[in-house]
Amino acid sequence: MRDILKNCTRFLTGHIRQTPQQILTEISTVMDPDTVADVYGTGELIKSFERDIARLLGKKSAVFMPSGTMAQQIALRIWAQRKNINNFAFHPKSHLELHEHKGYQYLHQLNGVYVGEANRLFAFSDLRNLSIPISTLLIELPQRELGGLLPSWQELQNICLWAKNKGIALHLDGARLWECKPFYEKDYDEICAVFDTVYVSFYKGIGGICGAVLAGEPNIIAEAKIWKRRHGGDLVHLYPYILSAKHCFTKRLAMMEDYHQKATEVAHILREIPGIHVTPEEPMTNMMHVYIEGDKELLENRALQIAQKTKIWMFNKLAASPIPDYHKFELSVGDATLQLENTEIFDIFMRLVQ
Amino acid sequence: MRDILKNCTRFLTGHIRQTPQQILTEISTVMDPDTVADVYGTGELIKSFERDIARLLGKKSAVFMPSGTMAQQIALRIWAQRKNINNFAFHPKSHLELHEHKGYQYLHQLNGVYVGEANRLFAFSDLRNLSIPISTLLIELPQRELGGLLPSWQELQNICLWAKNKGIALHLDGARLWECKPFYEKDYDEICAVFDTVYVSFYKGIGGICGAVLAGEPNIIAEAKIWKRRHGGDLVHLYPYILSAKHCFTKRLAMMEDYHQKATEVAHILREIPGIHVTPEEPMTNMMHVYIEGDKELLENRALQIAQKTKIWMFNKLAASPIPDYHKFELSVGDATLQLENTEIFDIFMRLVQ
Repeated sequence: MRDILKNCTRFLTGHIRQTPQQILTEISTVMDPDTVADVYGTGELIKSFERDIARLLGKKSAVFMPSGTMAQQIALRIWAQRKNINNFAFHPKSHLELHEHKGYQYLHQLNGVYVGEANRLFAFSDLRNLSIPISTLLIELPQRELGGLLPSWQELQNICLWAKNKGIALHLDGARLWECKPFYEKDYDEICAVFDTVYVSFYKGIGGICGAVLAGEPNIIAEAKIWKRRHGGDLVHLYPYILSAKHCFTKRLAMMEDYHQKATEVAHILREIPGIHVTPEEPMTNMMHVYIEGDKELLENRALQIAQKTKIWMFNKLAASPIPDYHKFELSVGDATLQLENTEIFDIFMRLVQ
Repeated sequence: MRDILKNCTRFLTGHIRQTPQQILTEISTVMDPDTVADVYGTGELIKSFERDIARLLGKKSAVFMPSGTMAQQIALRIWAQRKNINNFAFHPKSHLELHEHKGYQYLHQLNGVYVGEANRLFAFSDLRNLSIPISTLLIELPQRELGGLLPSWQELQNICLWAKNKGIALHLDGARLWECKPFYEKDYDEICAVFDTVYVSFYKGIGGICGAVLAGEPNIIAEAKIWKRRHGGDLVHLYPYILSAKHCFTKRLAMMEDYHQKATEVAHILREIPGIHVTPEEPMTNMMHVYIEGDKELLENRALQIAQKTKIWMFNKLAASPIPDYHKFELSVGDATLQLENTEIFDIFMRLVQ
């Protein structure tokens, strides 16, 4: 399998694959040679990047962090202390619940309260069922585990207005915020305006090595920097991540419309193939979940055969799905997807389900 | 000041200065082009480095972490839970007490109990004064804030044997462990043998970009990986730090004897100059504290003038010292120090105190 992958030249999902050597060479080639290293969060490199991202999100201040896991726990802890309430509310399929070994609980003694149900976005009407006080309402835009779903603009504003009126802090899990712009047709500062704190990421759609930013009011961000140090995230040098984030941001932020357009085309193609479902039927961002009918192992083997013949890599593995006899994978459109003709995409999926 | 620094070609302390661009270029040039990126702690690059460091330290398992702040809090938390005791003991000038905003307390609800006094190493005799149960005794080798002091081998063994007999876990803060070898004249696995968990660092003497390793028994390290994720340290890619650590490790581990030898020579030179004290008088590692008599601002300005004339940078700033009328700085010998002749070092200090 590794050999077949290694021989592939094109990829259905994500960006064009680069080796660490290619990435580091690219960064060191394009960067300003006079760049001075950041030192424990200080220096023009990190400060100017934080300022740029804060401005773009319409916030007064921002801090660069190694990860969103760190950034979001910190935001929740600060709000919990300010509101003197240890409960926060979130979607049952939030990254904090599924992928962080409950750090919010083990490190910060916070209680996560579910809003709505696992298989759909939460709605304004779900908020009535919140029976205990919460410090923060965490909203993920788009909801990654549901194939990149987004609430309508009006629904989002209703939810947020309800929270504001109750004195609840609003935190945006914007791991894929950049990918939302085509759907809302609004600038990032407009989308973020109603949120008190915003986390954004620089890999995923942007394709940097890693790194995150937390943005908000200056007093919140100043406190977040203290927590960043407590977490062990105030690294002596973050410049490899910052340089990569800056570079890829310049390269790809303007591509989000193209990724969304291609995702729409791919969804339309796949919907026509018997034995394939796509959700959402009309992609709201650059991503969708693709459901394929058939035996998991047989389909995975067939994808390997396709990869061997066409040198196009489709997916790593299939996951279980709620639809009987169907298995699924996440299809995120990136630079690599743009390189594939729609007819080629149609062909490889036809081979897969035949 | 920044302009003068920028024009300097030689440096009294540390390694030869490289820009981020030079560092990234060097890494991408020397690395194996077939290196595959680590993904969330998996992959041969990170695994093999962890294995190599574990073996060198004589431990069965190890995990690479972004920082020592993270690694050490995690070790202490795990021991606290295993022993069911929230108190740990450490030197009052430990990094955990001075530089981490008490993360051990705010994130892990641990209580730090001082052993001994701030201005000297703690001794076997200080352990008698520990009046409450502790889960872990944290020992820093060498004690950085005291100029790199080390207990004698016999004293260290006595302290550790006492802890072992009481069922207390032994954790080594080895931020500068590599620099201890010339003093103990023992291999790293011998120095670490008595410790249950060991943290080591890859900047400082090694001169990498950043990064740390925590080593110990496999069940401890497996749990540490869960905590690493909770802390937000299980980054999707750590390869810039790992590649840099590997490269600098190869380049500099064998240099520790030379650094120590040069530190000894420098201390001997400086001791002869009126108005200068050095502690320790005989350096135990590559570092020492240099105390200089005189007005802080006047001395700092004079160092700038020396830098302007000789293009040798002596120190950034002077700090207050317990000796009246004296100010101090930390002198760590690295590749840059080795490039200076002892007569040149004598000359610049003579100019400084004249």
